[in-house]
Amino acid sequence: MEQRVSLITLGVDDLARARAFYEALGWTTRAEPGDDVVFFQAGRMVVALWGRAALAEDSGVEDTGGWGGITLAHNLRSPEEVDAVVEEARAAGAAVVREPGATFWGGYSAALTDPDGHPWEIAHNPRWTIRDDGTIELPA
Amino acid sequence: MEQRVSLITLGVDDLARARAFYEALGWTTRAEPGDDVVFFQAGRMVVALWGRAALAEDSGVEDTGGWGGITLAHNLRSPEEVDAVVEEARAAGAAVVREPGATFWGGYSAALTDPDGHPWEIAHNPRWTIRDDGTIELPA
Repeated sequence: MEQRVSLITLGVDDLARARAFYEALGWTTRAEPGDDVVFFQAGRMVVALWGRAALAEDSGVEDTGGWGGITLAHNLRSPEEVDAVVEEARAAGAAVVREPGATFWGGYSAALTDPDGHPWEIAHNPRWTIRDDGTIELPA
Repeated sequence: MEQRVSLITLGVDDLARARAFYEALGWTTRAEPGDDVVFFQAGRMVVALWGRAALAEDSGVEDTGGWGGITLAHNLRSPEEVDAVVEEARAAGAAVVREPGATFWGGYSAALTDPDGHPWEIAHNPRWTIRDDGTIELPA
């Protein structure tokens, strides 16, 4: 198994609301208005929005509700960029559950949840390289 | 906010077990044996393993247990590659919750869960391009 992820699918309760949230962050999709799944080309991979019940069935899991132990992160090049993206997300309807600040690991980050409760860390890690295309390179 | 994900963190109950599972799939990490977080360079992004309670606290969410509405996928170039990776994962200790087969959307996939219950779809989508480096390109 190659060491990569192709797709992250976020199960959502209201597809139109979820799509509007990510579009309000500036994300664009080629999905049609009535499509029941929305794909975003997200860097070199794909993020999808799909009904949570359908995703649970397709994934062969029981949906107990709530958070399931997965958090996404969006890394940026400076603390100032973290502050700016957090304000964009707040304006788009995110709940900022941890305001931006210094972290125990020597970086700077905030935590927010999207309208379906999926958490994102918005972070600056001074030890990680962000390439020009936004992809991440761990230290050698 | 740029249209990309930098990091996916999987909250785990037993870090050594989780790490051993992904290493059994052939993934490699520069983490030391005693590190309390394990980072994998996964294509152009990062996958991390970290204690689930710590991740919940850091993410500002309550952990209700179970699945939280996020599924990952690993896409491959043919149905035969799907079959092969599913057998690798089964041998590594994954639970295959949906055996490989044709899907309603015209592809071929299986679903499995890792030792912490995090679901992965192992899929071939004939309409998506997989570049030589394994990254994904949606149709234009």
